[in-house]
Amino acid sequence: MPVNLSAPNPAELFAVAGVRIGVAEAGIRKANRKDLTVVLLDEGASVAGVFTQNRFCAAPVQVCREHLAAGRGIRAMVINTGNANAGTGQEGLMRARSTCAALAKQLKIAPEQVLPFSTGVIMEPLPYERIEAGLPAALADAREDNWLRAAEGIMTTDTVAKACGVQIVIAGARVSITGISKGAGMIRPNMATMLGYMATDARVSPAVMQQLARELAEGSFNRVTVDGDTSTNDSFVVIASNKAAHPVIESLDSPEGRQLKAAMLDVARKLAQAIVRDGEGATKFMTIRVQGGKTAEECRLVAYAIAHSPLVKTAFFASDPNLGRILAAVGYAGIGDLDPSHIDLFLDDVHVAVQGGRNPSYREEDGQRVMKQSEITVRVVLGRGQAEDTVWTCDFSHDYVTINADYRS
Amino acid sequence: MPVNLSAPNPAELFAVAGVRIGVAEAGIRKANRKDLTVVLLDEGASVAGVFTQNRFCAAPVQVCREHLAAGRGIRAMVINTGNANAGTGQEGLMRARSTCAALAKQLKIAPEQVLPFSTGVIMEPLPYERIEAGLPAALADAREDNWLRAAEGIMTTDTVAKACGVQIVIAGARVSITGISKGAGMIRPNMATMLGYMATDARVSPAVMQQLARELAEGSFNRVTVDGDTSTNDSFVVIASNKAAHPVIESLDSPEGRQLKAAMLDVARKLAQAIVRDGEGATKFMTIRVQGGKTAEECRLVAYAIAHSPLVKTAFFASDPNLGRILAAVGYAGIGDLDPSHIDLFLDDVHVAVQGGRNPSYREEDGQRVMKQSEITVRVVLGRGQAEDTVWTCDFSHDYVTINADYRS
Repeated sequence: MPVNLSAPNPAELFAVAGVRIGVAEAGIRKANRKDLTVVLLDEGASVAGVFTQNRFCAAPVQVCREHLAAGRGIRAMVINTGNANAGTGQEGLMRARSTCAALAKQLKIAPEQVLPFSTGVIMEPLPYERIEAGLPAALADAREDNWLRAAEGIMTTDTVAKACGVQIVIAGARVSITGISKGAGMIRPNMATMLGYMATDARVSPAVMQQLARELAEGSFNRVTVDGDTSTNDSFVVIASNKAAHPVIESLDSPEGRQLKAAMLDVARKLAQAIVRDGEGATKFMTIRVQGGKTAEECRLVAYAIAHSPLVKTAFFASDPNLGRILAAVGYAGIGDLDPSHIDLFLDDVHVAVQGGRNPSYREEDGQRVMKQSEITVRVVLGRGQAEDTVWTCDFSHDYVTINADYRS
Repeated sequence: MPVNLSAPNPAELFAVAGVRIGVAEAGIRKANRKDLTVVLLDEGASVAGVFTQNRFCAAPVQVCREHLAAGRGIRAMVINTGNANAGTGQEGLMRARSTCAALAKQLKIAPEQVLPFSTGVIMEPLPYERIEAGLPAALADAREDNWLRAAEGIMTTDTVAKACGVQIVIAGARVSITGISKGAGMIRPNMATMLGYMATDARVSPAVMQQLARELAEGSFNRVTVDGDTSTNDSFVVIASNKAAHPVIESLDSPEGRQLKAAMLDVARKLAQAIVRDGEGATKFMTIRVQGGKTAEECRLVAYAIAHSPLVKTAFFASDPNLGRILAAVGYAGIGDLDPSHIDLFLDDVHVAVQGGRNPSYREEDGQRVMKQSEITVRVVLGRGQAEDTVWTCDFSHDYVTINADYRS
């Protein structure tokens, strides 16, 4: 059961001019599933992406990097579920390229203008003939108002489709922003999540697109974790179709640039948090906020140590205020000169630990009250500086084990 | 259910001359449990210890470090379960010191000659009056042939007592080595495990005792992990009572030093592996061996990434050869210049992946056959050097969640 996450609201999914989406059932792993999605971009769109830092990056990730670097202008994307085309060596690269070539042929564009994405089981050969056979149906389905079907088309172990959007006005012109994401396990993105796509019709200089994608990922997908397992296929793509009526945004530091980035970050964060809310077996959504560090990096180190601790995560599942487990995780996070006697711990508004020890006025029933909530903020104050950072995660339940013990069956 | 781990064999638990052990029920957390253990050393014993690297180290660990540094000669140890005396601030330090003082008074020695150890719940006040009240019964119980009771006396979530020993002959003299350990969760020792104690009557120069303790820990307790959570209380103590008849061992590189260290390492490794075999919810024992690295450190990094991955651990629980999860963990382990196309993966004798991709001759039923075993070796060959390292771990089951969701109830 996802944590406070409903199906997407169709009224929030805005068509983005110049971006059409089509979905088909190609039988890639199982029959009768939407498993193939194409995204078609009008000429003139700007595209930037950030990808997994896993050294075992999948074949489609390698091809995406090549095709973005080729600089011929991206005109299409093809996304399949059911098979990750990862751990598949040279043969996998060939199959990812064949997929691009097949779509390029249908669209009469160059293969380098297509980005491929795959998600699913690792180390099995990609059935690219099925993808090729499914392309005509996906192309026939292509429409600008198809974002909900796209969100459904990229789901794997997700229980809820993830999509949201917003409209803003920049320099008097209406601008639409819509995004989708997927992912529930093997989630500890490093540069981007499993799969996340955002499009806007805003006019953005190609020169700042990569910076925009990177900063959006840093503030959203790169701050969530389910199980600490960084996937081989993480990809986050930002599209600007450049169809809106405002002057081109040349810098993210201009008033318009800041306005656009803030609105896009809000959408990116909702999409990233949706992945945690739908985390495999999740029953609780936790915000881990670490303050008072010397640097944001050390705050992040502590936040991830807490967010990845199986003992912390199972205690939250049980609503058991066994909060010493959080202090233990702070202690092994890797800050060599950490002084425990300066550390405070809060659970929402409850002051649990003071100067590294139990707060004398802390009462177990107060901790218990907060632990029973479905949304909990853990706040650690390190007492050694002014920096802070935040990570979002979920608890660790029986269902996580069940889902991952049975994934392929 | 522990994995291929039986109760200790009394015939392997050798009395160590000069080391007496007593156990009592002090009602520290629950009634009718052996929860208090004292170890009494004759004058002239050498003692060395290695302790947790968790910055939130518990009060007894801090006091152990102080008392070992004081150099007055350790004459006794006091170990309680039911309460870790961690995350307890200045008050916790005072209570650990009071415990030492109480035992020192009974034995007419200095408090600095006593080492305290605590294990159990974190961040609750140590009931040291109960420990003090229980000391007379523990002292009355003290005998040299009491190792099995000691192993039982230090158990917490352990399901089986952990103890073993060996006798060897050094320079014509019989030497006994016996050790005990405990721990099942919050296990990813960093310098030592939750609690491990080894004693020998060998004659060892005090000058090499610390080196001996460190090298034994490195080859045993520092290579096991259950859940990646480094405890606040990890302690590993090595005692040489110096009662045996051989000449003093002045160097671990002498023939006698090497002989003693090899025999003690064998015992230490069995004690450390026993902790994994009895890991919370464990159904399988896995040896993660990483070869062909540039350094042992990078091999260890990869081994721990595999050993900590919840996805890998749940796949082993399910006997599901979803082996791409292992490649993904190799990829995110943190070796920046890792070339996936040089990596081979073996499951016992089965060659699963070759040059970063699926081995064409790999058959799923072969992987399945190995995955069903209760003892499995995962071997990764990085193809970039000659170094190697090994880590031992267990799988991740429903029972881990159950145990840790209910620990305090």
